[in-house]
Amino acid sequence: MAPPAPRTGDAVFANVERVNAELFTLTYGAIVRQLLTDLEEVEEVNKQLDQISIFRGYNIGIRLIDEFLTKSNISRCVDFKETAEVIAKAGFKMFLGVTASVTNWDADGTSCSLVLEDNPLVDFVELPDTCQGLYYCNILSGVIRGALEMACISPEPNFWCTHQGMCLVRLATHPR
Amino acid sequence: MAPPAPRTGDAVFANVERVNAELFTLTYGAIVRQLLTDLEEVEEVNKQLDQISIFRGYNIGIRLIDEFLTKSNISRCVDFKETAEVIAKAGFKMFLGVTASVTNWDADGTSCSLVLEDNPLVDFVELPDTCQGLYYCNILSGVIRGALEMACISPEPNFWCTHQGMCLVRLATHPR
Repeated sequence: MAPPAPRTGDAVFANVERVNAELFTLTYGAIVRQLLTDLEEVEEVNKQLDQISIFRGYNIGIRLIDEFLTKSNISRCVDFKETAEVIAKAGFKMFLGVTASVTNWDADGTSCSLVLEDNPLVDFVELPDTCQGLYYCNILSGVIRGALEMACISPEPNFWCTHQGMCLVRLATHPR
Repeated sequence: MAPPAPRTGDAVFANVERVNAELFTLTYGAIVRQLLTDLEEVEEVNKQLDQISIFRGYNIGIRLIDEFLTKSNISRCVDFKETAEVIAKAGFKMFLGVTASVTNWDADGTSCSLVLEDNPLVDFVELPDTCQGLYYCNILSGVIRGALEMACISPEPNFWCTHQGMCLVRLATHPR
Protein backbone atom coordinates (compact mmCIF):
# COMPACT_ATOMS: atom_id res chain seq x y z
CA MET A 1 0.00 0.00 0.00
CA ALA A 2 1.33 3.45 -0.86
CA PRO A 3 2.04 5.72 2.11
CA PRO A 4 -0.74 8.25 2.74
CA ALA A 5 -0.31 11.57 0.96
CA PRO A 6 0.86 14.54 3.03
CA ARG A 7 -2.07 16.53 4.32
CA THR A 8 -2.27 20.28 4.26
CA GLY A 9 -2.24 22.29 7.47
CA ASP A 10 -5.91 23.08 6.88
CA ALA A 11 -6.97 19.46 6.73
CA VAL A 12 -4.98 18.62 9.84
CA PHE A 13 -6.17 21.67 11.77
CA ALA A 14 -9.76 20.65 11.12
CA ASN A 15 -9.15 17.36 12.91
CA VAL A 16 -7.29 18.32 16.06
CA GLU A 17 -8.78 19.25 19.43
CA ARG A 18 -8.99 22.96 19.81
CA VAL A 19 -9.76 25.66 22.33
CA ASN A 20 -11.03 29.18 21.79
CA ALA A 21 -8.21 31.32 20.37
CA GLU A 22 -9.18 34.34 22.43
CA LEU A 23 -8.86 32.36 25.66
CA PHE A 24 -5.35 31.26 24.66
CA THR A 25 -4.31 34.76 23.65
CA LEU A 26 -5.66 36.38 26.79
CA THR A 27 -4.18 33.72 29.07
CA TYR A 28 -0.72 34.10 27.53
CA GLY A 29 -1.06 37.89 27.71
CA ALA A 30 -2.16 37.72 31.35
CA ILE A 31 0.99 35.88 32.27
CA VAL A 32 3.29 38.26 30.37
CA ARG A 33 1.58 41.19 32.08
CA GLN A 34 2.01 39.58 35.47
CA LEU A 35 5.73 39.13 34.73
CA LEU A 36 5.94 42.82 33.79
CA THR A 37 4.28 43.76 37.09
CA ASP A 38 6.50 41.48 39.17
CA LEU A 39 9.82 42.08 37.48
CA GLU A 40 9.27 45.71 36.39
CA GLU A 41 12.17 45.84 33.88
CA VAL A 42 11.49 44.78 30.27
CA GLU A 43 14.98 43.24 30.15
CA GLU A 44 14.17 41.05 33.14
CA VAL A 45 10.90 39.95 31.55
CA ASN A 46 12.76 39.07 28.35
CA LYS A 47 15.18 36.95 30.38
CA GLN A 48 12.27 35.17 32.01
CA LEU A 49 10.52 34.64 28.66
CA ASP A 50 13.84 33.33 27.34
CA GLN A 51 14.00 30.83 30.18
CA ILE A 52 10.43 29.76 29.49
CA SER A 53 11.21 29.48 25.80
CA ILE A 54 14.51 27.62 26.14
CA PHE A 55 13.42 25.08 28.74
CA ARG A 56 9.65 24.92 28.53
CA GLY A 57 9.05 26.00 24.93
CA TYR A 58 11.63 23.48 23.84
CA ASN A 59 9.74 20.74 25.67
CA ILE A 60 6.46 21.90 24.16
CA GLY A 61 8.02 21.52 20.70
CA ILE A 62 9.18 18.01 21.55
CA ARG A 63 5.60 17.09 22.53
CA LEU A 64 3.89 18.80 19.59
CA ILE A 65 6.09 17.29 16.90
CA ASP A 66 4.59 13.85 17.55
CA GLU A 67 1.10 15.11 16.86
CA PHE A 68 2.35 17.01 13.84
CA LEU A 69 4.13 14.06 12.22
CA THR A 70 1.31 11.64 12.97
CA LYS A 71 -1.44 13.84 11.61
CA SER A 72 0.31 15.59 8.72
CA ASN A 73 1.95 12.57 7.04
CA ILE A 74 4.87 14.81 6.20
CA SER A 75 8.15 12.99 5.69
CA ARG A 76 11.75 14.17 5.81
CA CYS A 77 12.33 17.52 4.13
CA VAL A 78 14.96 17.57 1.40
CA ASP A 79 16.58 20.83 2.50
CA PHE A 80 16.37 23.75 4.89
CA LYS A 81 14.22 25.70 2.43
CA GLU A 82 11.56 23.01 2.48
CA THR A 83 11.82 22.77 6.27
CA ALA A 84 11.10 26.47 6.60
CA GLU A 85 8.12 26.19 4.25
CA VAL A 86 6.67 23.23 6.15
CA ILE A 87 6.91 25.10 9.48
CA ALA A 88 5.39 28.23 7.96
CA LYS A 89 2.55 26.60 6.04
CA ALA A 90 1.72 23.35 7.85
CA GLY A 91 3.17 23.82 11.34
CA PHE A 92 1.74 27.22 12.20
CA LYS A 93 -1.54 26.31 10.53
CA MET A 94 -1.91 23.14 12.58
CA PHE A 95 -1.27 24.76 15.94
CA LEU A 96 -2.25 28.42 15.65
CA GLY A 97 -4.65 28.18 12.70
CA VAL A 98 -2.68 30.69 10.59
CA THR A 99 0.17 30.49 8.10
CA ALA A 100 3.42 32.44 8.02
CA SER A 101 5.34 33.72 5.02
CA VAL A 102 8.99 32.83 4.53
CA THR A 103 11.10 35.82 3.51
CA ASN A 104 14.38 37.62 4.00
CA TRP A 105 16.71 34.77 3.01
CA ASP A 106 20.42 35.40 3.43
CA ALA A 107 22.80 34.89 0.51
CA ASP A 108 23.85 31.33 1.33
CA GLY A 109 20.32 30.16 2.15
CA THR A 110 21.02 29.26 5.79
CA SER A 111 18.70 31.73 7.47
CA CYS A 112 15.28 33.22 6.82
CA SER A 113 12.41 34.98 8.56
CA LEU A 114 8.98 33.54 9.25
CA VAL A 115 6.52 36.42 9.31
CA LEU A 116 3.13 35.90 10.91
CA GLU A 117 0.87 38.47 9.33
CA ASP A 118 -1.97 37.33 11.53
CA ASN A 119 -0.52 36.15 14.83
CA PRO A 120 -3.27 35.13 17.26
CA LEU A 121 -0.86 35.51 20.19
CA VAL A 122 -0.79 39.28 19.69
CA ASP A 123 -4.49 39.91 19.09
CA PHE A 124 -5.56 42.77 21.39
CA VAL A 125 -1.92 43.40 22.36
CA GLU A 126 -0.63 46.96 22.27
CA LEU A 127 2.79 47.49 23.77
CA PRO A 128 3.21 50.84 25.52
CA ASP A 129 6.38 52.81 24.77
CA THR A 130 8.00 51.50 27.93
CA CYS A 131 7.75 47.93 26.61
CA GLN A 132 9.02 48.42 23.09
CA GLY A 133 11.96 46.05 23.55
CA LEU A 134 9.79 43.21 24.82
CA TYR A 135 10.12 39.87 22.97
CA TYR A 136 6.46 39.23 23.49
CA CYS A 137 6.08 35.90 21.63
CA ASN A 138 9.45 34.51 22.58
CA ILE A 139 7.96 31.15 23.48
CA LEU A 140 7.41 30.44 19.76
CA SER A 141 11.13 30.21 19.03
CA GLY A 142 11.63 27.60 21.75
CA VAL A 143 8.71 25.56 20.46
CA ILE A 144 10.07 25.56 16.90
CA ARG A 145 13.59 24.66 18.01
CA GLY A 146 12.37 21.77 20.15
CA ALA A 147 10.18 20.42 17.37
CA LEU A 148 12.95 20.65 14.77
CA GLU A 149 15.64 19.05 16.89
CA MET A 150 13.35 16.19 17.83
CA ALA A 151 12.16 15.57 14.28
CA CYS A 152 15.42 16.21 12.44
CA ILE A 153 13.20 16.91 9.46
CA SER A 154 16.04 18.83 7.85
CA PRO A 155 19.40 17.18 7.10
CA GLU A 156 21.04 19.67 9.47
CA PRO A 157 19.61 19.37 12.94
CA ASN A 158 21.31 22.42 14.45
CA PHE A 159 18.79 25.19 14.52
CA TRP A 160 19.00 28.64 15.88
CA CYS A 161 15.73 30.38 16.30
CA THR A 162 14.94 33.76 17.82
CA HIS A 163 11.87 35.85 18.13
CA GLN A 164 12.10 39.51 17.20
CA GLY A 165 9.31 42.03 17.54
CA MET A 166 5.72 40.92 17.57
CA CYS A 167 5.29 38.63 14.56
CA LEU A 168 8.68 37.56 13.32
CA VAL A 169 10.72 34.45 14.00
CA ARG A 170 14.25 34.29 12.63
CA LEU A 171 15.25 30.75 11.75
CA ALA A 172 18.76 29.61 10.87
CA THR A 173 20.61 26.38 10.32
CA HIS A 174 24.28 26.01 11.23
CA PRO A 175 25.95 23.15 9.35
CA ARG A 176 28.36 21.36 11.63
CA MET B 1 -38.88 40.19 14.66
CA ALA B 2 -38.44 37.65 17.43
CA PRO B 3 -35.00 37.64 19.09
CA PRO B 4 -32.76 34.86 17.84
CA ALA B 5 -32.99 31.65 19.82
CA PRO B 6 -30.18 30.90 22.27
CA ARG B 7 -27.52 28.76 20.68
CA THR B 8 -25.93 25.78 22.31
CA GLY B 9 -22.27 25.83 23.28
CA ASP B 10 -21.60 23.37 20.45
CA ALA B 11 -23.00 25.65 17.77
CA VAL B 12 -21.11 28.64 19.12
CA PHE B 13 -17.86 26.73 19.56
CA ALA B 14 -18.04 25.68 15.90
CA ASN B 15 -17.99 29.33 14.86
CA VAL B 16 -15.24 30.89 16.96
CA GLU B 17 -11.57 31.16 16.10
CA ARG B 18 -9.63 28.40 17.71
CA VAL B 19 -6.10 27.23 18.34
CA ASN B 20 -4.78 23.74 18.95
CA ALA B 21 -5.78 22.61 22.46
CA GLU B 22 -2.47 20.87 23.06
CA LEU B 23 -0.54 24.09 22.39
CA PHE B 24 -2.70 25.94 24.92
CA THR B 25 -2.37 23.20 27.54
CA LEU B 26 1.38 22.91 27.13
CA THR B 27 1.91 26.68 27.17
CA TYR B 28 -0.09 27.09 30.36
CA GLY B 29 1.74 24.14 31.89
CA ALA B 30 5.11 25.57 30.85
CA ILE B 31 4.41 28.75 32.74
CA VAL B 32 3.22 26.98 35.89
CA ARG B 33 6.35 24.82 35.81
CA GLN B 34 8.54 27.89 35.41
CA LEU B 35 6.82 29.44 38.45
CA LEU B 36 7.52 26.24 40.43
CA THR B 37 11.19 26.42 39.42
CA ASP B 38 11.51 30.12 40.27
CA LEU B 39 9.50 30.24 43.47
CA GLU B 40 10.21 26.68 44.71
CA GLU B 41 7.40 26.60 47.31
CA VAL B 42 3.95 25.40 46.21
CA GLU B 43 2.40 27.97 48.53
CA GLU B 44 4.26 30.78 46.75
CA VAL B 45 3.17 29.45 43.36
CA ASN B 46 -0.43 29.38 44.57
CA LYS B 47 -0.13 33.01 45.66
CA GLN B 48 1.23 33.93 42.23
CA LEU B 49 -1.51 31.97 40.44
CA ASP B 50 -4.00 33.73 42.72
CA GLN B 51 -2.62 37.10 41.64
CA ILE B 52 -2.84 36.07 38.00
CA SER B 53 -6.35 34.81 38.54
CA ILE B 54 -7.62 37.80 40.55
CA PHE B 55 -6.18 40.55 38.36
CA ARG B 56 -5.55 38.98 34.99
CA GLY B 57 -8.08 36.14 34.99
CA TYR B 58 -10.73 38.63 36.04
CA ASN B 59 -9.83 40.82 33.06
CA ILE B 60 -9.90 37.82 30.74
CA GLY B 61 -13.44 37.11 31.92
CA ILE B 62 -14.45 40.70 31.23
CA ARG B 63 -13.14 40.36 27.66
CA LEU B 64 -14.60 36.92 26.98
CA ILE B 65 -18.10 37.71 28.19
CA ASP B 66 -18.65 40.02 25.22
CA GLU B 67 -17.90 37.25 22.76
CA PHE B 68 -20.02 34.86 24.78
CA LEU B 69 -23.11 37.08 24.92
CA THR B 70 -22.82 38.12 21.28
CA LYS B 71 -22.43 34.61 19.92
CA SER B 72 -24.62 32.61 22.29
CA ASN B 73 -27.76 34.83 22.25
CA ILE B 74 -28.23 33.93 25.90
CA SER B 75 -30.25 36.45 27.88
CA ARG B 76 -30.49 37.13 31.61
CA CYS B 77 -30.67 33.99 33.71
CA VAL B 78 -33.65 33.73 36.04
CA ASP B 79 -31.70 32.44 39.03
CA PHE B 80 -28.33 31.26 40.26
CA LYS B 81 -29.15 27.67 39.32
CA GLU B 82 -29.60 28.64 35.69
CA THR B 83 -26.45 30.77 35.81
CA ALA B 84 -24.43 27.78 36.96
CA GLU B 85 -25.91 25.60 34.21
CA VAL B 86 -25.14 28.19 31.52
CA ILE B 87 -21.51 28.46 32.64
CA ALA B 88 -21.14 24.68 32.82
CA LYS B 89 -22.84 23.81 29.55
CA ALA B 90 -22.44 26.83 27.25
CA GLY B 91 -19.52 28.77 28.75
CA PHE B 92 -17.00 25.99 29.16
CA LYS B 93 -18.06 24.50 25.85
CA MET B 94 -17.52 27.74 23.99
CA PHE B 95 -14.05 28.41 25.35
CA LEU B 96 -12.53 25.05 26.26
CA GLY B 97 -14.63 22.80 24.02
CA VAL B 98 -15.88 20.69 26.95
CA THR B 99 -18.83 20.83 29.34
CA ALA B 100 -18.85 20.66 33.13
CA SER B 101 -21.38 19.05 35.42
CA VAL B 102 -23.06 21.02 38.19
CA THR B 103 -23.19 19.12 41.47
CA ASN B 104 -22.79 19.36 45.21
CA TRP B 105 -25.39 22.06 45.88
CA ASP B 106 -25.65 23.34 49.44
CA ALA B 107 -28.98 23.30 51.27
CA ASP B 108 -30.00 26.88 50.45
CA GLY B 109 -28.94 26.69 46.79
CA THR B 110 -26.30 29.43 46.98
CA SER B 111 -23.24 27.38 46.16
CA CYS B 112 -22.37 24.49 43.89
CA SER B 113 -19.44 22.77 42.22
CA LEU B 114 -18.62 22.75 38.52
CA VAL B 115 -16.77 19.54 37.78
CA LEU B 116 -14.80 19.28 34.56
CA GLU B 117 -14.58 15.59 33.80
CA ASP B 118 -12.44 16.34 30.78
CA ASN B 119 -10.39 19.46 31.51
CA PRO B 120 -8.03 20.26 28.61
CA LEU B 121 -5.87 22.40 30.91
CA VAL B 122 -4.75 19.30 32.79
CA ASP B 123 -4.13 16.97 29.87
CA PHE B 124 -0.66 15.44 30.32
CA VAL B 125 -0.42 16.96 33.81
CA GLU B 126 0.72 14.73 36.65
CA LEU B 127 1.44 16.48 39.90
CA PRO B 128 4.29 14.93 41.89
CA ASP B 129 3.74 14.38 45.62
CA THR B 130 5.57 17.62 46.39
CA CYS B 131 2.98 19.62 44.44
CA GLN B 132 -0.21 18.07 45.80
CA GLY B 133 -1.49 21.36 47.21
CA LEU B 134 -1.08 23.24 43.94
CA TYR B 135 -4.18 25.04 42.63
CA TYR B 136 -3.15 24.21 39.11
CA CYS B 137 -6.09 25.71 37.17
CA ASN B 138 -6.63 28.66 39.45
CA ILE B 139 -6.92 31.04 36.50
CA LEU B 140 -10.34 29.55 35.69
CA SER B 141 -11.96 30.95 38.84
CA GLY B 142 -10.80 34.49 38.02
CA VAL B 143 -12.11 34.18 34.47
CA ILE B 144 -15.53 33.04 35.66
CA ARG B 145 -15.77 35.75 38.31
CA GLY B 146 -14.85 38.50 35.85
CA ALA B 147 -17.33 37.25 33.29
CA LEU B 148 -20.16 36.98 35.81
CA GLU B 149 -19.62 40.37 37.41
CA MET B 150 -19.47 42.05 34.03
CA ALA B 151 -22.55 40.29 32.70
CA CYS B 152 -24.68 40.30 35.85
CA ILE B 153 -26.48 37.42 34.22
CA SER B 154 -27.80 36.34 37.60
CA PRO B 155 -29.94 38.66 39.76
CA GLU B 156 -27.21 38.54 42.42
CA PRO B 157 -23.94 39.84 41.04
CA ASN B 158 -21.69 39.00 44.00
CA PHE B 159 -19.84 35.86 43.10
CA TRP B 160 -17.27 33.93 44.97
CA CYS B 161 -15.39 31.43 42.94
CA THR B 162 -12.44 29.25 43.88
CA HIS B 163 -10.56 26.51 42.21
CA GLN B 164 -9.90 23.36 44.16
CA GLY B 165 -7.93 20.37 42.96
CA MET B 166 -7.48 19.69 39.29
CA CYS B 167 -10.96 19.81 37.79
CA LEU B 168 -13.31 21.50 40.23
CA VAL B 169 -14.50 25.07 40.50
CA ARG B 170 -16.59 26.03 43.52
CA LEU B 171 -19.09 28.73 42.67
CA ALA B 172 -21.18 30.66 45.21
CA THR B 173 -23.46 33.66 45.27
CA HIS B 174 -23.73 35.86 48.32
CA PRO B 175 -26.97 37.83 48.42
CA ARG B 176 -26.36 41.32 49.77
